[in-house]
Amino acid sequence: MYTVTKNYIEKMRKFIRVDGYLCFAEGGSFEDVSHSYEDYGVVLEKDMPNLLPGEKRINFRELTAISTGLAEGAKKAGGKVSPRFMETYRNILETYLGKCPETTTYKGVVYSPKDFVTKGLGLNMSDYVSVTSFTHYPFYTQFAIEVPDNWRWDLSYNVTIDDLIAIMDNAIEKGYTIAWGSDVSETGFTRDGIGVVPDMEDLAKSFVGSDQARWVGGNNPQARPQIVAPVKELAITQEMRQEGYDNKTTTDDHGMQIFGIAKDQNGTKYYMVKNSWGPTGKYKGIWYVSEAFVRYKTMNILVNKNSIPKDIRKKMGI
Amino acid sequence: MYTVTKNYIEKMRKFIRVDGYLCFAEGGSFEDVSHSYEDYGVVLEKDMPNLLPGEKRINFRELTAISTGLAEGAKKAGGKVSPRFMETYRNILETYLGKCPETTTYKGVVYSPKDFVTKGLGLNMSDYVSVTSFTHYPFYTQFAIEVPDNWRWDLSYNVTIDDLIAIMDNAIEKGYTIAWGSDVSETGFTRDGIGVVPDMEDLAKSFVGSDQARWVGGNNPQARPQIVAPVKELAITQEMRQEGYDNKTTTDDHGMQIFGIAKDQNGTKYYMVKNSWGPTGKYKGIWYVSEAFVRYKTMNILVNKNSIPKDIRKKMGI
Amino acid sequence: MYTVTKNYIEKMRKFIRVDGYLCFAEGGSFEDVSHSYEDYGVVLEKDMPNLLPGEKRINFRELTAISTGLAEGAKKAGGKVSPRFMETYRNILETYLGKCPETTTYKGVVYSPKDFVTKGLGLNMSDYVSVTSFTHYPFYTQFAIEVPDNWRWDLSYNVTIDDLIAIMDNAIEKGYTIAWGSDVSETGFTRDGIGVVPDMEDLAKSFVGSDQARWVGGNNPQARPQIVAPVKELAITQEMRQEGYDNKTTTDDHGMQIFGIAKDQNGTKYYMVKNSWGPTGKYKGIWYVSEAFVRYKTMNILVNKNSIPKDIRKKMGI
Amino acid sequence: MYTVTKNYIEKMRKFIRVDGYLCFAEGGSFEDVSHSYEDYGVVLEKDMPNLLPGEKRINFRELTAISTGLAEGAKKAGGKVSPRFMETYRNILETYLGKCPETTTYKGVVYSPKDFVTKGLGLNMSDYVSVTSFTHYPFYTQFAIEVPDNWRWDLSYNVTIDDLIAIMDNAIEKGYTIAWGSDVSETGFTRDGIGVVPDMEDLAKSFVGSDQARWVGGNNPQARPQIVAPVKELAITQEMRQEGYDNKTTTDDHGMQIFGIAKDQNGTKYYMVKNSWGPTGKYKGIWYVSEAFVRYKTMNILVNKNSIPKDIRKKMGI
Amino acid sequence: MYTVTKNYIEKMRKFIRVDGYLCFAEGGSFEDVSHSYEDYGVVLEKDMPNLLPGEKRINFRELTAISTGLAEGAKKAGGKVSPRFMETYRNILETYLGKCPETTTYKGVVYSPKDFVTKGLGLNMSDYVSVTSFTHYPFYTQFAIEVPDNWRWDLSYNVTIDDLIAIMDNAIEKGYTIAWGSDVSETGFTRDGIGVVPDMEDLAKSFVGSDQARWVGGNNPQARPQIVAPVKELAITQEMRQEGYDNKTTTDDHGMQIFGIAKDQNGTKYYMVKNSWGPTGKYKGIWYVSEAFVRYKTMNILVNKNSIPKDIRKKMGI
Amino acid sequence: MYTVTKNYIEKMRKFIRVDGYLCFAEGGSFEDVSHSYEDYGVVLEKDMPNLLPGEKRINFRELTAISTGLAEGAKKAGGKVSPRFMETYRNILETYLGKCPETTTYKGVVYSPKDFVTKGLGLNMSDYVSVTSFTHYPFYTQFAIEVPDNWRWDLSYNVTIDDLIAIMDNAIEKGYTIAWGSDVSETGFTRDGIGVVPDMEDLAKSFVGSDQARWVGGNNPQARPQIVAPVKELAITQEMRQEGYDNKTTTDDHGMQIFGIAKDQNGTKYYMVKNSWGPTGKYKGIWYVSEAFVRYKTMNILVNKNSIPKDIRKKMGI
Repeated sequence: MYTVTKNYIEKMRKFIRVDGYLCFAEGGSFEDVSHSYEDYGVVLEKDMPNLLPGEKRINFRELTAISTGLAEGAKKAGGKVSPRFMETYRNILETYLGKCPETTTYKGVVYSPKDFVTKGLGLNMSDYVSVTSFTHYPFYTQFAIEVPDNWRWDLSYNVTIDDLIAIMDNAIEKGYTIAWGSDVSETGFTRDGIGVVPDMEDLAKSFVGSDQARWVGGNNPQARPQIVAPVKELAITQEMRQEGYDNKTTTDDHGMQIFGIAKDQNGTKYYMVKNSWGPTGKYKGIWYVSEAFVRYKTMNILVNKNSIPKDIRKKMGI
Repeated sequence: MYTVTKNYIEKMRKFIRVDGYLCFAEGGSFEDVSHSYEDYGVVLEKDMPNLLPGEKRINFRELTAISTGLAEGAKKAGGKVSPRFMETYRNILETYLGKCPETTTYKGVVYSPKDFVTKGLGLNMSDYVSVTSFTHYPFYTQFAIEVPDNWRWDLSYNVTIDDLIAIMDNAIEKGYTIAWGSDVSETGFTRDGIGVVPDMEDLAKSFVGSDQARWVGGNNPQARPQIVAPVKELAITQEMRQEGYDNKTTTDDHGMQIFGIAKDQNGTKYYMVKNSWGPTGKYKGIWYVSEAFVRYKTMNILVNKNSIPKDIRKKMGI
Repeated sequence: MYTVTKNYIEKMRKFIRVDGYLCFAEGGSFEDVSHSYEDYGVVLEKDMPNLLPGEKRINFRELTAISTGLAEGAKKAGGKVSPRFMETYRNILETYLGKCPETTTYKGVVYSPKDFVTKGLGLNMSDYVSVTSFTHYPFYTQFAIEVPDNWRWDLSYNVTIDDLIAIMDNAIEKGYTIAWGSDVSETGFTRDGIGVVPDMEDLAKSFVGSDQARWVGGNNPQARPQIVAPVKELAITQEMRQEGYDNKTTTDDHGMQIFGIAKDQNGTKYYMVKNSWGPTGKYKGIWYVSEAFVRYKTMNILVNKNSIPKDIRKKMGI
Repeated sequence: MYTVTKNYIEKMRKFIRVDGYLCFAEGGSFEDVSHSYEDYGVVLEKDMPNLLPGEKRINFRELTAISTGLAEGAKKAGGKVSPRFMETYRNILETYLGKCPETTTYKGVVYSPKDFVTKGLGLNMSDYVSVTSFTHYPFYTQFAIEVPDNWRWDLSYNVTIDDLIAIMDNAIEKGYTIAWGSDVSETGFTRDGIGVVPDMEDLAKSFVGSDQARWVGGNNPQARPQIVAPVKELAITQEMRQEGYDNKTTTDDHGMQIFGIAKDQNGTKYYMVKNSWGPTGKYKGIWYVSEAFVRYKTMNILVNKNSIPKDIRKKMGI
Repeated sequence: MYTVTKNYIEKMRKFIRVDGYLCFAEGGSFEDVSHSYEDYGVVLEKDMPNLLPGEKRINFRELTAISTGLAEGAKKAGGKVSPRFMETYRNILETYLGKCPETTTYKGVVYSPKDFVTKGLGLNMSDYVSVTSFTHYPFYTQFAIEVPDNWRWDLSYNVTIDDLIAIMDNAIEKGYTIAWGSDVSETGFTRDGIGVVPDMEDLAKSFVGSDQARWVGGNNPQARPQIVAPVKELAITQEMRQEGYDNKTTTDDHGMQIFGIAKDQNGTKYYMVKNSWGPTGKYKGIWYVSEAFVRYKTMNILVNKNSIPKDIRKKMGI
Repeated sequence: MYTVTKNYIEKMRKFIRVDGYLCFAEGGSFEDVSHSYEDYGVVLEKDMPNLLPGEKRINFRELTAISTGLAEGAKKAGGKVSPRFMETYRNILETYLGKCPETTTYKGVVYSPKDFVTKGLGLNMSDYVSVTSFTHYPFYTQFAIEVPDNWRWDLSYNVTIDDLIAIMDNAIEKGYTIAWGSDVSETGFTRDGIGVVPDMEDLAKSFVGSDQARWVGGNNPQARPQIVAPVKELAITQEMRQEGYDNKTTTDDHGMQIFGIAKDQNGTKYYMVKNSWGPTGKYKGIWYVSEAFVRYKTMNILVNKNSIPKDIRKKMGI
């Protein structure tokens, strides 16, 4: 909630500054975290308690309704605001999310929020870079990914999709994890722990005459072949990736953590992903996402720049 | 600001309760003051300071924008609010209007706000009653005047217009002042200290051939005869009053204080009115309003019930 | 339809008067009936026929659309209306609901509508009072319940919830029935004739291992334990009641008639309620509603004041 | 008001039928009159009185607000209406415009409305035709002029602009008057009785060094040369006419009556026009409109077909 | 797409001309085709290719979104448009629908689009007339059917429903087909190839005790008796037809082609209809529609006037 | 128009990508020019003619209406667009702004647009940097100025206001001009060629007793003292600058060109500014803007980085 508070304040101020031409919603990007850690530090959850007896979770529904109402109210009134406006918003966030503490205690040591990041957690936030791969900007330059949740207009490094995969593989190998931003509203991203890019025509063929087809019948909406790995996948090119971005079938949906690599019985490579949807699915909260899926649907990743292969770092100029 | 704060809180809560079917604006009624004095007391202005260096007045424009935005935001989100919502609104009011103090000091004595009303000012708020005069409810019953600013749905005593005048005259004679709610967006309520109900036909006659008419000419929009007392006025009946209310030409505009009675050279009776528009007009902030105007355009008055003639009190049942 | 007509006329006039800050919808309150009986009397349905051959019911959908359109049209045009406007609305109501007759005939006697109430039905409408129980106003005063359907801003007497139950029990005992306004959009108010406040945790426990649970399974949305009386209920306090009103989980849904008291095998007390939903449910249109439910979800009741215990009447000042 | 009533009823019904894709406003076309005369006849104003004492004119503002509200209300409710809907609208029109009588008395003779047209006024409505001149439809065919006020989708005969002028001249010569629909929101259509198409460049030249220019100066917005006939005019072609219609600078503004032809000192031909703006301007309600203006800005005319030259009638096929 | 292009251009121009009081949607009427054939001719589909590799059909969803946006944009900006506006719209249509060719080649002969209609297809478009049957206009006159899709305001001949049936029967007998505009959102117009007007009361009776009723049960929403011909039908009168049009239960849904007449085992007459819904239903794209259905729900037909019986043609005046 | 075309295309694509959270209006920033020059080059105006005979300027009003309509249309339809959508927009721009040529001819040499920038004009666009001065980001880092017209999210270098002035002075001295983005909706930015920050209190004092004051009088709205340089100005601090940005009284209005420095009789320094408002004002299109005004109201500047003093460049890291 400390990080959420800091980001909401900045988002509201920017919303006012750009006359409301900004997506004021709950979503955000990885850089919201890294910037906030750098500028304001962070505290442990226990040090910023806010739930009253009987409350089970933060009332984000109401906070969002109020925040949006406040922003729209200010906009309707001409958009100029006094310093009291931001004071008001800070009070609202304090009411709903709790009061940001000035210290946090970890293993008996009292830290300021900023010191907790650097000394307590040992993080150097400037080590973290966002990397993506699209062709509408030159490779090995930076650009701000054009999605509504990138309200910070933060820059990502642009590399080829092959280099993006190389960066990811190298990071895992070296023991770094990766923050993975991806489109998950895809048929191939199942609710059962799998992310693949099935070759639908092949799938349809294998479905004919199957036991499932016999039971659910041709007119039944449930008669789509079920996606179970291993499945024959499409070969993903840089062009297919770009087309998905350009026609907006690839969307900026969700952030997860990649922590390993696995292979199935056919030798197909899968990234192991920690999802935040609870211990659901076949693998209790873990998703196995094929390299094809990652190539196709990754919006961007956040990685420690020390985990990037040297030759690629050189091309990136860092 | 103490009284404003207490009323805004109640208005917001009621707005939420009735699903927004309430006029959430800056306006209100006399009873907002008397109820607030009774329920919460009041403090001296000096004891609730809020202006920052350089600020000249409360930023009501921004407060209204924010309040409305908040209310609309809650309404859009379904209208159910948690206790944090009202806490939020109290914080906002504190930010813009100042923190309501728990005591006020008057002539060296420290009072609680409620004690200040009863002991410091010697007021018994239950002495104050609202009186009006309309025919769509029986006389000598109570009803809630149907105007948007009566968001409290407060009741007024309904008496004949003759009795209303008798109440006012008796109050002035006995040394009480009267809170006077009236329509002031009338041609006859000038910006120059006069409130009359001119007989427009008579006025038009006297205008022809006048010096003013000669100069401004017939096609000039400024060629309306200027209203200067004394002027021949219409005789106002209970029916004319009601018609003004029914067709909404009599509106609920403004609250002032009547403190005296005067007569002009023709013996026409005028009420002496303290207006809050600053020391403007011919009489430096005082208006002379004819009995005809008061009979026609008074929405309601707030008077001390002890200032009401006994026979009328009896009819009112108080 | 006679009563509906009289109320729609008053609602439209008030809507215009308060610049549209009023819920102009089909709903209303018990006092709409009692006021209308007192001011305009009532007639038997047979004396105000309006259905054409082939019509089965009043076209309220179209009448509401037209009424709202009319009201919005007048509002958009500035809100001032001539006397023709209300004449227009009376004509519309006559077209859809029928012409209000000047007499009604009952057991061979011809009555005026007002005489029919007093002489034909033997009712003295001033005997009927609305009673409620909330803590945001002092007990034993009156206040207008803040719900959209209370467009009349009518007052209710405020008593403790124990006194409210005492009033109801006394009325039933003395042979009076009670108009009961309640929230019915509660899980515990089933479509099968029961109104209870189940202890959900207890219910969940008993559900585990039940036959029903075995069949519908854990992921099935229908796997909620079915509510069948007798069931363990929550003990309802004045505070719980108030919280339901304040956070708007208790809503102003529906009006019914309480006509009796019953006990189940465990001795739990139920009020017997005539509902207007037709001969549905287990008891063919009758609902058995536990005292806990009534304590929790009653918005207000309308009772004959002669049915109220003397000590309570004294506290109420009537 | 008889004719207005009949047209409003048809307009409302059509509005409902075409799901609101119709301009429901006060405006209309000449054919509204001719169709209404033919289908419903007409009555003398005295036979359809409606003003109450004190009223000076029909309250069209309120009637329009109500009509629009009603139409929008029905549209929002899905657009399907019962027969009671149109009955409602007839009642509204009766309330505001008066009850359509079944007879009218003229010079002592009692007529039905239809007989009054044919026998009382001696009119054969089928003699009246609308004529226009545009190139986006073939000449000597009929088409519905595409303007919002042509809600009836009525057809006009399309002839060359020379033939249109020939028809008008012939009609005046034979003693017929002409209903003239024209754009009057043109600089050249003055408020002082003149309608011309000034050659603005020529006018600007003559303005330089004039006495007026000397006084009002170059930066003064009133420094446009005043338009006083005679003035040098543009020569109007069929193409210029069409361009004005296509780019919507020629609008469907106003209906007037042409009753004569005059020439000025330079021999320029003017049509003499009775306007309905009261006895205003230099010629007390009469406008002198040059042939150039008529060629340029005429939307359509309604003429008795017997007043059309035979050769043109032949081309028109009537 | 050639015909679609030509019609969209005209619709957009008219939308602008009538200030947007026109239904700018995908729908249209038969006359859109006949007018377009006459004014612009037509080309074979192969001569106006537009799909890119991978595209399966025209993207009408996007074209409609763009067209509507363009029209609304122009309307908001005041509604006056330059010639570049229509050039823009022609370009848009070219982008989405393809470039209208200047010739089309059929059986080795190269035609201009207009010649292709007259010489290639041997059609004389002026032979085709629209016929309908409603009572709110006199029979044997023409009027524009008041439905949103009749954006052209085209006229139809109005004949009795008996004559309409006679025209249809004669056409089929003489070997002409008929374009049939009808309401198809009727229970009796099944998705299985049948169009009838079942006598619902009779149907309900036969349902009781049936095998289907036994299985689906009384509370099941699927428990409506299934409509399978033969079924007892209602006898349709001219009044029922008119009522359906007046209360808008008969809607202007869909255009199909009638090409034959058939009788069932009971001798009931059915029209054989080619639908454009693909080879669906019991008869693989063919519908059997009873005369009762056609009498009730036909909006209008388009027929070759040479196929109309002589006596009816005489009454129609053609 | 070449540059406008290239920018509109990018703005539309970004608008679609970020779901419309972008200000799609006519405005932009200096970087629109520099990016466009770098990515697409530029052509001489003569080589991209588009006005038709009779047209005097580009119809931006209509183009904006159409562009906005198109964008809103796409947004309403879900925001996903096919490649045809951008093709459509390119066609629209071509229709209104002309076809972008593939070459431009300058002094007899034919260039490609990109070559024309580098070889014809000798510009290296990467030399140009945007510089600003605000305290909400650290000095000597880059950030995207948060104003609606910065739709590109371009970065500016952040320096102290003293360094910004030093950069400007050095540039002028070295013979470079400066693109100057500033707030011009200030009282002190007159329509007569002057930009100053008057000390209003001092000005008011000097006004009393002046000749102007005598004539226009105290109540006259024109009685504000006229601003004529030299005038006593406020001393501007970094804090005042930031406050103007934070409360949005400093707005992102207008771009001009600074080409020189001048001093008045008192030695006050003024920047000489070429405005694009035509040869208006006392200095025929030139404005003299005081250093105080520039310190206070400059949003950003675009300068050639070679014109920046070395020590400041070093701090900027370029």
